[in-house]
Amino acid sequence: MATNFKLIIEYDGSRHHGWQRQPNGRTIQGEIETAIRTLTGQNVVLIGSGRTDAGVHALGQTANFTCATRLTAPQLLNGLNALLPAEIVIHACEPAPEGFHARYDVLSKLYRYRILNRAVPAAVGRQYQWWIRSPLDVVSMRAAARLLVGRQDFKSFEGAGSPRAHTIRHIMEACVTCPSAEQIDFDIEADGFLRCMVRNIVGTLVEIGRGHLAPEQMRVIIDARDRTRAGATAPPQGLCLVRVRY
Amino acid sequence: MATNFKLIIEYDGSRHHGWQRQPNGRTIQGEIETAIRTLTGQNVVLIGSGRTDAGVHALGQTANFTCATRLTAPQLLNGLNALLPAEIVIHACEPAPEGFHARYDVLSKLYRYRILNRAVPAAVGRQYQWWIRSPLDVVSMRAAARLLVGRQDFKSFEGAGSPRAHTIRHIMEACVTCPSAEQIDFDIEADGFLRCMVRNIVGTLVEIGRGHLAPEQMRVIIDARDRTRAGATAPPQGLCLVRVRY
Repeated sequence: MATNFKLIIEYDGSRHHGWQRQPNGRTIQGEIETAIRTLTGQNVVLIGSGRTDAGVHALGQTANFTCATRLTAPQLLNGLNALLPAEIVIHACEPAPEGFHARYDVLSKLYRYRILNRAVPAAVGRQYQWWIRSPLDVVSMRAAARLLVGRQDFKSFEGAGSPRAHTIRHIMEACVTCPSAEQIDFDIEADGFLRCMVRNIVGTLVEIGRGHLAPEQMRVIIDARDRTRAGATAPPQGLCLVRVRY
Repeated sequence: MATNFKLIIEYDGSRHHGWQRQPNGRTIQGEIETAIRTLTGQNVVLIGSGRTDAGVHALGQTANFTCATRLTAPQLLNGLNALLPAEIVIHACEPAPEGFHARYDVLSKLYRYRILNRAVPAAVGRQYQWWIRSPLDVVSMRAAARLLVGRQDFKSFEGAGSPRAHTIRHIMEACVTCPSAEQIDFDIEADGFLRCMVRNIVGTLVEIGRGHLAPEQMRVIIDARDRTRAGATAPPQGLCLVRVRY
């Protein structure tokens, strides 16, 4: 009798080639599938709430897999954490309803992007932020971020390589906060994200924060449905998948 | 005409063999001295406020060196940051009074030790904390920490290998805070520290937090002047030299 297990996963993506399994190169999905096979003797497919790119982190990635095993959920949790490298930690493992699907059942996902805005880069914690030397105008970034909220077509922020049938997403929240004088956090929650969408939005917000674009240009960029109108893709290490809601 | 330069330095000690220059192995002092030589063509001795052990971090280590150079302080700052590895960042470089000595002139140093106290370890930020699984009693740790404050003989917390002529130090502040439900910070400020003193104190506080020792035992341990009475040395990665006052 197979059980559908749900996992909540934290990972430091610095030295992994992203979430998705690859024939060569360490990936989060690949490492966890291998650990499950070692523990249970079974080949499973681990379904994540979505892929994260190389270098992106997660505090609460969620995934599920179906497996016939005599191990209990707590035994799986402890066994996986004993086998996995230090960069990957399972926070929770629990039996889920038979039909639970970590990708299809997502209600919303929350990402945080962290910027360090000061004259010199960080040494401590440099793996978790994007250093920007020139002062950013947070008020402008905040005004532009508000224009993102709502059910809209975000094709202008879709990265190349994996076009989606439709590019309409519902952004419930998009806000810019400053937890310290040197730090700028961008939190964004939506029912789904296009490829590289958060990093492309952040690249655009930073152009606005530098004063290269007016905040109202965010409206124009969204309406253009044209990737070339938006800013460059922000680097991956500032991005973290904080939580997935079902 | 030689100038005495003062540096404020941040470093991630994860992959270095501590502060002090060694014939083999990368050290913070060694890397900065090499970068100064590359920039100025001169062999200098960089005097730190104190040594930090392998794996210990700093947000505000302070050091000085004397050098005859035509480079200005801002040029040195930018040049050093361009040459140094990402783990070492110079925050400030400024001319200091001729007699300024980064070790002898210290008024106080502030260290922070960070503990993660929850069922599972961290992936993100694991390089900067000590994971302790069993719940710690913060109230007891706090009561014990208070007993550290004052001018006292801390021989019980002196690590082996480099005994000091006198082991009396003045601890101005020693406090335990919980910035989140899972995190415990121990901040300690003193006019000086013995070798491994903070980590030996933290090891003792954790024994108290686990309930293996009563808080009042801190008094007995201090009075014993005997290293074997105190707890084990806490691991280095939780420790950070936050600031040095002159």
